[in-house]
Amino acid sequence: MHDTVSLSELDIFCRSALAAVGADDATVDAATRAMMHASELGVDSHGVRLLPHYLSALQGGRLNRNPNLRVVGGFGAVEVLDADHAHGAVGAYHGMQRACELARQYGLGAVAVRNNSHFGAGGAYALDAARRGFVGLAFCNSDSFVRLHEGAERFHGTNPIAAAVPVPQGEPWLLDMATSAIPYNRVLLYRSLGIELPPGVASDGQGIDTADAQAADMLAPLGGEFGFKGAALAGLAEILSAVLTGMRLSFDIPPMAGPDLASPRLLGCFVMALNPEAFLDRAAFDAGMRRYLDRLRGSLARQGGRVMAPGDREWSVAAERRAKGVTLDPATAQAFAAFAADHGLTAPIG
Amino acid sequence: MHDTVSLSELDIFCRSALAAVGADDATVDAATRAMMHASELGVDSHGVRLLPHYLSALQGGRLNRNPNLRVVGGFGAVEVLDADHAHGAVGAYHGMQRACELARQYGLGAVAVRNNSHFGAGGAYALDAARRGFVGLAFCNSDSFVRLHEGAERFHGTNPIAAAVPVPQGEPWLLDMATSAIPYNRVLLYRSLGIELPPGVASDGQGIDTADAQAADMLAPLGGEFGFKGAALAGLAEILSAVLTGMRLSFDIPPMAGPDLASPRLLGCFVMALNPEAFLDRAAFDAGMRRYLDRLRGSLARQGGRVMAPGDREWSVAAERRAKGVTLDPATAQAFAAFAADHGLTAPIG
Repeated sequence: MHDTVSLSELDIFCRSALAAVGADDATVDAATRAMMHASELGVDSHGVRLLPHYLSALQGGRLNRNPNLRVVGGFGAVEVLDADHAHGAVGAYHGMQRACELARQYGLGAVAVRNNSHFGAGGAYALDAARRGFVGLAFCNSDSFVRLHEGAERFHGTNPIAAAVPVPQGEPWLLDMATSAIPYNRVLLYRSLGIELPPGVASDGQGIDTADAQAADMLAPLGGEFGFKGAALAGLAEILSAVLTGMRLSFDIPPMAGPDLASPRLLGCFVMALNPEAFLDRAAFDAGMRRYLDRLRGSLARQGGRVMAPGDREWSVAAERRAKGVTLDPATAQAFAAFAADHGLTAPIG
Repeated sequence: MHDTVSLSELDIFCRSALAAVGADDATVDAATRAMMHASELGVDSHGVRLLPHYLSALQGGRLNRNPNLRVVGGFGAVEVLDADHAHGAVGAYHGMQRACELARQYGLGAVAVRNNSHFGAGGAYALDAARRGFVGLAFCNSDSFVRLHEGAERFHGTNPIAAAVPVPQGEPWLLDMATSAIPYNRVLLYRSLGIELPPGVASDGQGIDTADAQAADMLAPLGGEFGFKGAALAGLAEILSAVLTGMRLSFDIPPMAGPDLASPRLLGCFVMALNPEAFLDRAAFDAGMRRYLDRLRGSLARQGGRVMAPGDREWSVAAERRAKGVTLDPATAQAFAAFAADHGLTAPIG
């Protein structure tokens, strides 16, 4: 048994497993691309680790294996897409493709996606727009996990904001951030490692900051003492992806993990694309990005530190993983092996 | 001499003073509205305190007293506006008005403003959109003051992000945040008070965090240990307001305070409006905002804390100031009195 699995082996296994539970071609493709985006760039919380969960949700009926996406509203440069309870990547990729088409036609475009589900890493969709030459933005809300500033209950989800910008002769500028101080998976990791959390990132059941990962009951919004900023950014994601789509607010969304894997979760998401060429000519835009990034990457770091552009860390992980593959965590490797055995597939472990 | 000045007295004085240095009607109106927005809502760093500075910049020639705004590019729902080196509020208010008109026509609209200048509080323009029934977003960059994550030099400006959302029967949801941990004015205040800064908000000349306001040489990006998020948000503001407009990057912008008050600073800004009715009907949008805000304001606070929606603190200050007026800081009161004496005006102090 090898320690690492190549990206292409993982990709093939995702596709085989999704097809094995009856997902249609569009679902197989979108869900695989979204997970592989995250696994390639090192966002393991949203990578192939999620495959077993998605398979259960497709089998359970929460996710529609053969969704019929329909345009149900919008006008001009806005479109409202009903994703028919598809896997979240189906609605989000399709929405971003339409947003780019609208941006080509109108300079910018926005798509509100209704009846979607967990879309994984928002960066996947923002990046998809950047690969097409557009500035891409993606927002989503999710079940409550994060307290408000000075709050004592889980209110917002980790409500991500993702943005990507095309860069000439280089990988896109890429931001994909939770609006919480840290992701909940970090709490789980620190719990299992038995180490203390950084200050100001998680709270106990009364909303009081705690460094004890065991006692952490909710996440803090980004910003520490200035957590009203993180909470407001979460609110912006909430308004765009839930209020403008008419979908569920974070506190109404049932937990991702279940137990109910049969009922659609009625999530919305919001994607937007801007065409740089509507603002200035491509050469001037490219030169501006180039100059900005060259100067950024060449700027002074503090002792022992390193300055990076958003996405640089991820592109560096991606280069390594393209060359050397990915190490699966034990629980995921085990779940893959069990699913493969049940369905007559070959698990991606040598 | 009274301690406080009414908002209407302040408004009148701003208008008289701006007119006295030869600013045209559009400049008088826009600059006054922007300052009064900030003074009314308690954002004193961007309120009438800036009037003496703006008067000097108008007299010095940095700001054009009779700007001729022109549409110089764009297509579809995008417009590129050349503000002809106007006071920043002129370009930003005009840009947002156009963005709202585009949003009425296309569902959303974006305006890139070129050859603008310091626009004050970004919330003024986002709020202007919300008052017209649109979701408003405003971004700007500014001269370098904020280090990168792990950086040791001033790189980004405090690059604000502002957003406002209309709320039925209530004041708009309003976010107006610097992407730095704190504003630089806070450092100056703590310096004069001789008290320690909160942890992780400012750094010395080597980029090392310091609580000593005297030693603080640059601001930290929002997020503390997760400052890469704040730096990336600053980058998003930079890309939208400088790269997409073809204007100066933060590190190329000369200091706001001068000494050169004769040369235009070549700032850009970026404003956007979304029409909720392009996404869903107004009643459903209103109900969604209502439910979100009611639940937010009624949610549990931690002991001694208080949960508020973005803008609630500002609206509460505004109510008080509408009733009781504003206390001017001594330097501003003195500058007003001196300008009034020089120009035969009545300073707004009893």
